[in-house]
Amino acid sequence: MSRTTIAEIAASLGVSVPTVSKVLNGRSDVAPGTRARVDEALKRHNYRRSVSPTARKSGLLDLVFRSMDNMWAHEIMLGVEEAASARRLSVVVSELRGAHRPPQRWLDGVMSRRPVGVILALSTLEDEQREQLLARSIPFVVVDTEGQPPVGVPTVGSTNWDGGLAATRHLLELGHRRIGVISGAPHVLCSRARVDGYRSAHDEAGITPDPALIRWGDFTAEGGYQHATALLALEDPPTAIFAGSDHQALGVQRAAHEAGMRLPQDLSIVGYDDLPMTAWLSPPLTTVRQPLREMGALATRMVLSLAEGKELVSMRMDLATELVIRESTMPTSP
Amino acid sequence: MSRTTIAEIAASLGVSVPTVSKVLNGRSDVAPGTRARVDEALKRHNYRRSVSPTARKSGLLDLVFRSMDNMWAHEIMLGVEEAASARRLSVVVSELRGAHRPPQRWLDGVMSRRPVGVILALSTLEDEQREQLLARSIPFVVVDTEGQPPVGVPTVGSTNWDGGLAATRHLLELGHRRIGVISGAPHVLCSRARVDGYRSAHDEAGITPDPALIRWGDFTAEGGYQHATALLALEDPPTAIFAGSDHQALGVQRAAHEAGMRLPQDLSIVGYDDLPMTAWLSPPLTTVRQPLREMGALATRMVLSLAEGKELVSMRMDLATELVIRESTMPTSP
Repeated sequence: MSRTTIAEIAASLGVSVPTVSKVLNGRSDVAPGTRARVDEALKRHNYRRSVSPTARKSGLLDLVFRSMDNMWAHEIMLGVEEAASARRLSVVVSELRGAHRPPQRWLDGVMSRRPVGVILALSTLEDEQREQLLARSIPFVVVDTEGQPPVGVPTVGSTNWDGGLAATRHLLELGHRRIGVISGAPHVLCSRARVDGYRSAHDEAGITPDPALIRWGDFTAEGGYQHATALLALEDPPTAIFAGSDHQALGVQRAAHEAGMRLPQDLSIVGYDDLPMTAWLSPPLTTVRQPLREMGALATRMVLSLAEGKELVSMRMDLATELVIRESTMPTSP
Repeated sequence: MSRTTIAEIAASLGVSVPTVSKVLNGRSDVAPGTRARVDEALKRHNYRRSVSPTARKSGLLDLVFRSMDNMWAHEIMLGVEEAASARRLSVVVSELRGAHRPPQRWLDGVMSRRPVGVILALSTLEDEQREQLLARSIPFVVVDTEGQPPVGVPTVGSTNWDGGLAATRHLLELGHRRIGVISGAPHVLCSRARVDGYRSAHDEAGITPDPALIRWGDFTAEGGYQHATALLALEDPPTAIFAGSDHQALGVQRAAHEAGMRLPQDLSIVGYDDLPMTAWLSPPLTTVRQPLREMGALATRMVLSLAEGKELVSMRMDLATELVIRESTMPTSP
């Protein structure tokens, strides 16, 4: 393990030790060119700042969302805040306003406040950004990746494929044979895994699902509404719809009402997430529970373990999903 | 304006200047007795730390909720985070797990991280705690007070009385004469103001509301469900219910469905808050919009103004509520 020092980095670049130190601390008073050279040298030397556990005085944990404007984010945040609070840490919450990767400005803020660790929800870091955090010994964990996480990035998720399988099996057992599925974007791995679970449940039952019943979109209510409206307008419409999120399920309910359907008699609906409000919908929503708070809490514990220099048992931890049967699904009429 | 110095405080107590400084910075390595004496002296001398705007380097803003486990809190947070981010500040979010006042541990954290300011949502500070923040020149603003805010505490709210008036006028105009109201706890000022708006609308119409139709509770779905169940079981049940929150309105919908009622034909329902999901309920909920994000953003701007040493235009700012008519209300059948 190379133990390059700040002094060696400074000497190799012909800059002062305080300059290297400023770059490590995310200070803005270093010329951009110098800064880029320092960062490049830190990476080349595989520099890792040594931080004793007691030196982590900020008492902060950073949590960053691609988008917070949904109840999914709120549940993750509740889990992180509770687990952090139990360890006497406070949570800094940021939103990337839809961007997939944090801007450098955000990373500079992180480097200057020196949190114990960083949790990224549905967002990822560029290679360069990961390297910047690693050089400063600020560990990070990703909750729900969009794509395959790069090697070495610890990730918390849930068993999306199993969730898709359980939801679809339930509908098949109720006698449904034309089951629509509305998922997220196809490039998002969790969307794909759920649809594959849907396909496997059909395979088990010896049924080939009609490709017209499989829809890709986003996880919003509006998206659910648009796709459900299209599905219900098919010549041979589905008798059940498996939505990719509880938000989407709200949109599916709306589309069904507009089509003059009674719920659940004319259309069974399964949601995904089990947000607290779903038990209060009319009819109460059958949904696949994702343990979002537990996922937030687990990510917190993982990042704190890393901060203490421990090895993780596994770089990837998927928590179990569970079908919660309420009243939005029923057997097909004979 | 007295300008007592730290040195004078230290001399008056016979402690060292670094000891006073540690107490100001929320450091834990000061004996509790000493610390209490220093805090008492800071208060007695009306000490105010002088902080130049550029010295506020933490880049942090603290936001603390009594409880975050609801969508109301999420909306406030989105407003604070967006306004803070526009000023290049990051938001530290904490929850008091139902306590009305923050524990000293939380306050110690605030004093040590030295945020630009503090926003308290539905929570207040003890006199002592207020004094501790004032001595450290950390300004604070309260969003939605429970009770009368103490003199000198800047507060952001919304026009609760007007909201209650508008919701009830709407139901009266639709021909309803027996209108139930479910509010929050009677000691919470916003609950009382909304019910008073309900009463004034009845006064205008020359109607005396039946006291049995006025219910006090909490803002949860479960609370709405319990109260609506009781209201609908009355010998002469209401034909409309004005709920104190959208969460409560979900519970009212459930109670109506369980009583075999069609919505909105058999029962008109008005909610309160206009959370994003209400437009997606079936039927879409008529509700009183509270501009929660704007309230969070305004509180942020107020606390930043205070941090810059500016005077507030007013210690109390109430933003307008607005009735949003959707499909959960309809005229009484003739």
